[in-house]
Amino acid sequence: MTRRSGRRPGKQDTRETILTAARDAFAEHGYDRATVRQIATSAGVDPALVHHYFGSKEKLFAATIDFPFSPAEILDRAFADGPDGAGERLVRTFLTVWDSPAGAAGVALFRSAVSNPLAARLLREFLTTQLLRHAMARLGIDPAQAQLRGALIASQLSGLAVTRYVLQLEPIATAPAETVVAAIGPTVQRYLTGELPSPPPE
Amino acid sequence: MTRRSGRRPGKQDTRETILTAARDAFAEHGYDRATVRQIATSAGVDPALVHHYFGSKEKLFAATIDFPFSPAEILDRAFADGPDGAGERLVRTFLTVWDSPAGAAGVALFRSAVSNPLAARLLREFLTTQLLRHAMARLGIDPAQAQLRGALIASQLSGLAVTRYVLQLEPIATAPAETVVAAIGPTVQRYLTGELPSPPPE
Repeated sequence: MTRRSGRRPGKQDTRETILTAARDAFAEHGYDRATVRQIATSAGVDPALVHHYFGSKEKLFAATIDFPFSPAEILDRAFADGPDGAGERLVRTFLTVWDSPAGAAGVALFRSAVSNPLAARLLREFLTTQLLRHAMARLGIDPAQAQLRGALIASQLSGLAVTRYVLQLEPIATAPAETVVAAIGPTVQRYLTGELPSPPPE
Repeated sequence: MTRRSGRRPGKQDTRETILTAARDAFAEHGYDRATVRQIATSAGVDPALVHHYFGSKEKLFAATIDFPFSPAEILDRAFADGPDGAGERLVRTFLTVWDSPAGAAGVALFRSAVSNPLAARLLREFLTTQLLRHAMARLGIDPAQAQLRGALIASQLSGLAVTRYVLQLEPIATAPAETVVAAIGPTVQRYLTGELPSPPPE
């Protein structure tokens, strides 16, 4: 029997098959309800192989969207010292990561989320479950307000990424990081710990 | 002689030819230095025809990026009553426009700017010369700080568009407009008239 392609199925194919199944599962069921077992079944592999390739459900999720940074590392840097000053530290960490070579991958991820609804759903789920939820819990933010506070912070930081890296609007595009931190840090701090005019009912 | 296409060159072609020449000119030279005469020459038409189709250089520019709203109308609504409370009014106007059917065109414009460098350049130039510059002058913002204030406002509002309309991050995606106005209005007000930590030298 002749093969249609000269390439033999191998590690790369298995890895890609798992990633495709994981993308579908995370987008359809969300991070919390998707399971490694279910992903393995739909990829036609043993769950142990998923763990072998990706290590954990968290890491598998980060791999599905090519997330270029380690969420845990970002949260450590920004929030190690508690809520006071966390706004400025978060903006500083954000800029350090985006101004680094990893920033190009961030822009690529953003482009794909803006043009592709599946990628948008995955990025939204990733932000919610891997970054915002952990950040709010870590800072001890009132759970009744955590989702709104997290989304407000995402609104300012995603717009910072758009103006500095995508549209390259001056003077934000080339301003020193500390100028941006001083201007935008207080906004993020207010979203984190300031009084919100209409908190959702507890 | 046989025609390659059954379609005769007509109004639509002339209009498109002018738009293409205008896109190139605005992206390459910027709005201020691009001229209708130069655009007409490169499109191979009389400048009077450009005025006939588009009315003015401002309107021609808005047409090149399919800008779905009238900048003058937005500025009127948001800034008619001066700087006090302008932050909340600007967010309210922004949401009114984006929540309307015109919002889909806004999302399309944004998508194209994120994926296409020429479109990004045009949108950046448009925001700078057609919206931010007029807004700052109208509110009597110190010209030495106007560009930074404008860019900061753009950073918050573009991120609001991303989270509410593109990523659809909850609760911002479905929150009533007035909840968003109450939460984000003070940020825009601070960027407009608050003290900025490191104002550029005057």
